[in-house]
Amino acid sequence: MSEAEYDLIIVGGGPAGLTAGLYAARAMLKAVLLEKGAVGGQVLLTDWIDNYPGFPEGISGFELVDKMAAQAARFGLETRLGSVVAMALAGPVKRLTLEGGGELTAKAVIIATGARPRQLGVPGEVELTGKGVSYCATCDAPFYRGQEVAVVGGGNTAVEEAVYLTRFAAKVYVIHRRNELRATRIVQEEAFANDKVEFILDTQVRRVRGNDQGVEGLELLGNDGAERFLPVSGVFMLIGTQPNNDMLPLTELAADPYGFIPTDAEMRTRLPGVMAAGDIRSKAVRQVVNAAGEGAVAVLAAEEYLHRHG
Amino acid sequence: MSEAEYDLIIVGGGPAGLTAGLYAARAMLKAVLLEKGAVGGQVLLTDWIDNYPGFPEGISGFELVDKMAAQAARFGLETRLGSVVAMALAGPVKRLTLEGGGELTAKAVIIATGARPRQLGVPGEVELTGKGVSYCATCDAPFYRGQEVAVVGGGNTAVEEAVYLTRFAAKVYVIHRRNELRATRIVQEEAFANDKVEFILDTQVRRVRGNDQGVEGLELLGNDGAERFLPVSGVFMLIGTQPNNDMLPLTELAADPYGFIPTDAEMRTRLPGVMAAGDIRSKAVRQVVNAAGEGAVAVLAAEEYLHRHG
Repeated sequence: MSEAEYDLIIVGGGPAGLTAGLYAARAMLKAVLLEKGAVGGQVLLTDWIDNYPGFPEGISGFELVDKMAAQAARFGLETRLGSVVAMALAGPVKRLTLEGGGELTAKAVIIATGARPRQLGVPGEVELTGKGVSYCATCDAPFYRGQEVAVVGGGNTAVEEAVYLTRFAAKVYVIHRRNELRATRIVQEEAFANDKVEFILDTQVRRVRGNDQGVEGLELLGNDGAERFLPVSGVFMLIGTQPNNDMLPLTELAADPYGFIPTDAEMRTRLPGVMAAGDIRSKAVRQVVNAAGEGAVAVLAAEEYLHRHG
Repeated sequence: MSEAEYDLIIVGGGPAGLTAGLYAARAMLKAVLLEKGAVGGQVLLTDWIDNYPGFPEGISGFELVDKMAAQAARFGLETRLGSVVAMALAGPVKRLTLEGGGELTAKAVIIATGARPRQLGVPGEVELTGKGVSYCATCDAPFYRGQEVAVVGGGNTAVEEAVYLTRFAAKVYVIHRRNELRATRIVQEEAFANDKVEFILDTQVRRVRGNDQGVEGLELLGNDGAERFLPVSGVFMLIGTQPNNDMLPLTELAADPYGFIPTDAEMRTRLPGVMAAGDIRSKAVRQVVNAAGEGAVAVLAAEEYLHRHG
């Protein structure tokens, strides 16, 4: 394995990748963290994080990843800017092809490419993103003080964020295409008990209507065929999460039906020497602190692998 | 299940329990965190934590748990001081018997009682813990760059961590009371091949000598009666980890042979409505950040259970 340039390549610079980087650098591994843009990942979509343990008053997403990056840098982590277009992960030397033609090689790889919010895919959505269409209630709720807004989705995130939005908005409509919510009972009950939340079930969004000034409302189509226009000034698309997996060999990694990567409890994928950590993993809970925890576990699994195959 | 006093009881106030408490309180569950002494757990044994992500310069163990506790309190977490002597966890109402005779009931329980390093039991050990006496090489090795340190123990962990320590320390003595190591042959061979590792077998540690500045060295007694002083600035006691499980129904929880509790990836034990998080779990990696991450996951599993059985 002497031909590999690095012991370990970490792909992705969100909380999982940065924690992996911190652990790898601190353990004196010859490691590099590869990030295609600025470090931070999805956390940067979040204005304020209240539930990362250790910050009693909360912390901004930007500041948290900035601190994580500084901590990894303090231990000497090498970081490279670059986009991976292909990975050959099956052999003892892992080869990552970069956009533009370069190649990086390592004995072990940690995949921490994360995930992103799912788009609804209706006319007006992309054009009005940032002008009334949002994927993050925590980020944008304060812009809608006293206004009427809609949430699209029926899961825990959609219903929880609808309740959160009532702190600011005068009225929050929750639009769901089925006649039952997927959210847990406790979450539903809190929303049902809230006068400002109104559910519009069995209904699909056909179009986001707006202009240069922003969103004007939603064109809705009931499953019974009835059409209606709902005037709102903001719409929050909270319909799920998509893995950032374009560059991954999904078949070899036995990706789940949604494109996330299964691992064992030590974050090992089915390919020897390849770990996955954070939101790219096939799992139930996607929180900053458990992404970070998985980054640490993945490095210790990588170290064990390097020790046995070194 | 209407007779249960709480939705959720969290047993233990280390990073796993405090994070569970923060998540439970923020989710408006009727939850209580039960701690037998001061909150904090094993982290309080650690003077300085360099690898909890978000604190670029590190943070003291005391300050970190203090912040975690303040954060949980901010969301209204109820905390009780009390020692659990027995748990009836099999039925829909979980019953916890407290020392002194009280009882708490809940629909769900998160076991976060943690673990503790096995102590050697020699003078100076307790007094110098966190000041040169350590129980975790991954945590503290980088503090001993260029220095001479000792490892006490003869198992796989002790010998592997001795080799790991050579990345930082100038010299690593491995002290073992028998004339043979328990570590597997392959692990031993790697250590034997390392110039920086020196074995001192057939020898016991009688005392850790030090002062306010830290450890000065070890008083050793050979099995042949010879006494000697070994000057080192750090000593790693790597003689095993003990679960805090006295109060747990180990058979029902299918504890592993070492007394740790197995769970699935969502932190569920084999008993419905009973989750485990942190160092009490049967697992490979015991780090603060992954204990915290598991606390968050355990609460989301508890919420799902409460939803289904509420």
